[in-house]
Amino acid sequence: MNILEIIAKKRDEKILTKKEIEFFINGYVDGTIADYQASALVMAIYLNGMTDEELLDLTFCMANSGDVLDLSEFGENVVDKHSTGGVGDKVSIVLLPIIASLGIPVAKMSGRGLGFTGGTIDKLESIPGFNTSVSIPKFKEYVKNIGISIIGQTADLAPADKKLYALRDTISCVDNIPLIASSIMSKKIAAGANKIVLEVTYGKGAFMKSLEGAKLLAEKMEALGKLAGREVKSVFTPMDEPIGYCVGNNLEIIEAINFLNGTVMPEDLKNVVLELGIHIIKLAGKGDNLEQNKLKMIETLNNGLALNKFKQMVKNQGGDTSYIDDITKFEKAKYIVDVKSKQSGEIVEINAEEIGKLACTLGAGRIRKEDTIDMSAGIVLNKKIGQKVEAGDTLATIYTNNAEKAKFAENEILDIYKIQ
Amino acid sequence: MNILEIIAKKRDEKILTKKEIEFFINGYVDGTIADYQASALVMAIYLNGMTDEELLDLTFCMANSGDVLDLSEFGENVVDKHSTGGVGDKVSIVLLPIIASLGIPVAKMSGRGLGFTGGTIDKLESIPGFNTSVSIPKFKEYVKNIGISIIGQTADLAPADKKLYALRDTISCVDNIPLIASSIMSKKIAAGANKIVLEVTYGKGAFMKSLEGAKLLAEKMEALGKLAGREVKSVFTPMDEPIGYCVGNNLEIIEAINFLNGTVMPEDLKNVVLELGIHIIKLAGKGDNLEQNKLKMIETLNNGLALNKFKQMVKNQGGDTSYIDDITKFEKAKYIVDVKSKQSGEIVEINAEEIGKLACTLGAGRIRKEDTIDMSAGIVLNKKIGQKVEAGDTLATIYTNNAEKAKFAENEILDIYKIQ
Repeated sequence: MNILEIIAKKRDEKILTKKEIEFFINGYVDGTIADYQASALVMAIYLNGMTDEELLDLTFCMANSGDVLDLSEFGENVVDKHSTGGVGDKVSIVLLPIIASLGIPVAKMSGRGLGFTGGTIDKLESIPGFNTSVSIPKFKEYVKNIGISIIGQTADLAPADKKLYALRDTISCVDNIPLIASSIMSKKIAAGANKIVLEVTYGKGAFMKSLEGAKLLAEKMEALGKLAGREVKSVFTPMDEPIGYCVGNNLEIIEAINFLNGTVMPEDLKNVVLELGIHIIKLAGKGDNLEQNKLKMIETLNNGLALNKFKQMVKNQGGDTSYIDDITKFEKAKYIVDVKSKQSGEIVEINAEEIGKLACTLGAGRIRKEDTIDMSAGIVLNKKIGQKVEAGDTLATIYTNNAEKAKFAENEILDIYKIQ
Repeated sequence: MNILEIIAKKRDEKILTKKEIEFFINGYVDGTIADYQASALVMAIYLNGMTDEELLDLTFCMANSGDVLDLSEFGENVVDKHSTGGVGDKVSIVLLPIIASLGIPVAKMSGRGLGFTGGTIDKLESIPGFNTSVSIPKFKEYVKNIGISIIGQTADLAPADKKLYALRDTISCVDNIPLIASSIMSKKIAAGANKIVLEVTYGKGAFMKSLEGAKLLAEKMEALGKLAGREVKSVFTPMDEPIGYCVGNNLEIIEAINFLNGTVMPEDLKNVVLELGIHIIKLAGKGDNLEQNKLKMIETLNNGLALNKFKQMVKNQGGDTSYIDDITKFEKAKYIVDVKSKQSGEIVEINAEEIGKLACTLGAGRIRKEDTIDMSAGIVLNKKIGQKVEAGDTLATIYTNNAEKAKFAENEILDIYKIQ
């Protein structure tokens, strides 16, 4: 067996055996197969597809390429949640404390941001002291003690996927159903939870541009989960404009705190949180009636238990909880600039991807892996799609520590907001 | 413009502009585009094809990526010849002196062997002293003085093709019509001759397995040549078994000398040489009557002028011509083993590629670029397809300096010769 034969088979639309897929993944991880060879095979997979059996073999092989967590000590209802990505996405930060406050164990590994999408881990780290680099035994201890922990993905979780994902990003092979499905599910399988809710996003700010594509992707992921003995439920979320009003690390944490303490609950964020939550509760065996589940969630928000669970988690992982009690303590950007509309009319488009890229330019994200993040940078949307504005109204507010970038962003915002 | 957009366009079956193709080729040569990115684009080209215009842009861009020779001082009829490859291929070594002896200038750059295909340059170097690493001014001086020179391809001739070809070899993207056509024609255009005869091989020992495929490839190359102001003629040669009887460096030179001095003229070699030659003479404006051209070639062989021209070339480039007068002077392999047939019947197959690979194993070729060649190693076929054999007859003779390999090759030969 050699990589040339494997590439030629997929190139010629033939089906790869389990042994061939293992040969590829193992060789790529140990370095005997070069990046440029993996690259040719990935493009051939992108263009010629994979059968369900090939997809299964690829996913399991990547899941087993590193550590596989055993969370069975927490019972059969350990919950995980994954989103295929969005801009302004603070869903996990709001949703998971709600779930944990209802007595469902949450053991969640999250990623960092790269490119225009932010990462839950970066956002949480904007709370001073909050530690996301935690060993697996410590992680389990947290879950055991207070029922929730959110940490950064460890280096040894599906390393094959990590390497392949980084490659796909540099060869225009990201937005492909088998490649996305195997990437997500290999990590989810390795991460050990047995109940998984997938938020599959679609629209201008998502990998999948249509609901149809999102459904196909979900179908593949659910099938893979089932074969791995996981119960999987998909929820579909449109992703044209950012979720909520805030984009940027500490801006999003503030928005999450305000949500949990009931100050401001943006409608779209609330809808996604409730929709995902009611299915998580059902998967966890805590209630089959979705309407009842929603009431339980609202109750735990109203009586402060969800906020309290969030505070417990922050404290547990070394974070300074005084920031949660007083959000004015968060570091503020040097330049805070309101962008005023030049015209009157209705807002018909705020492209999420463009807002994400602009926030990144302002310092909120990384262009390359090595970049450091400016926790206070970002954008707060004042108006969203469907709202009416008059000339002179504030459309959005820019937060940055770079005066030049503030100027640049102003024009960009005026360009991104489509008003008719 | 960036490489991600270019890869995505070809991935999505869109047409690349001239500027995009130049961006890719220039970036790949200067190293700003990585191997793994080129690899993804090459696989997308392999699977999604190229329009004639894209192919033209790619070919011209590669041709112009290094030196472009100007051979106009030798008139409008400077001849070049290219073969898409074969095993035991000593056609250039026999044909070009014949052509030069008829007063047609020959300025030929040839390649070295890699894998199972041998190279004209390696074969010529088995004549002690023969120098193939010659500067361009010196090369031109040789052509001016005696009307012929064959040298190794200089590093600066179509470097983009050189880099891309090496990559294709490692990612199973060699046997593809647009990629082969652009590779060959970029080198031919850069090499400066304006009359080009292409020998397009097909069959078990060639890239193109069918005559149909060979014709498609030829059509593309002829069109590219025409657009570059070159007159191109294609000749099709079946390539199932090796050409002539000898495979290996000095063994093939001996066969070429025996051909030029009239001692042994294998039928298949003679047919290819005459077929290519009559078209070269026509392209060079030295005779439109192909039958007459054939007679001229036979005459120049019979009266010794062709052999004499070969000797002149060898002398001119520092080679020891006493080896041409006395072929017994060539170094002999330590182990010379006759392989006897175990059965009687008719020979129905001698796979050229397998013979080429076996000769390579015996020391006649390179597995990797850095390998050194054993000039005396190889295989002499005693019987060819269509001949009848009795058990005990010699099928072929193995030449090697490695006793173990001789033993191995014996069984291989018995396996390669299919007798019914």
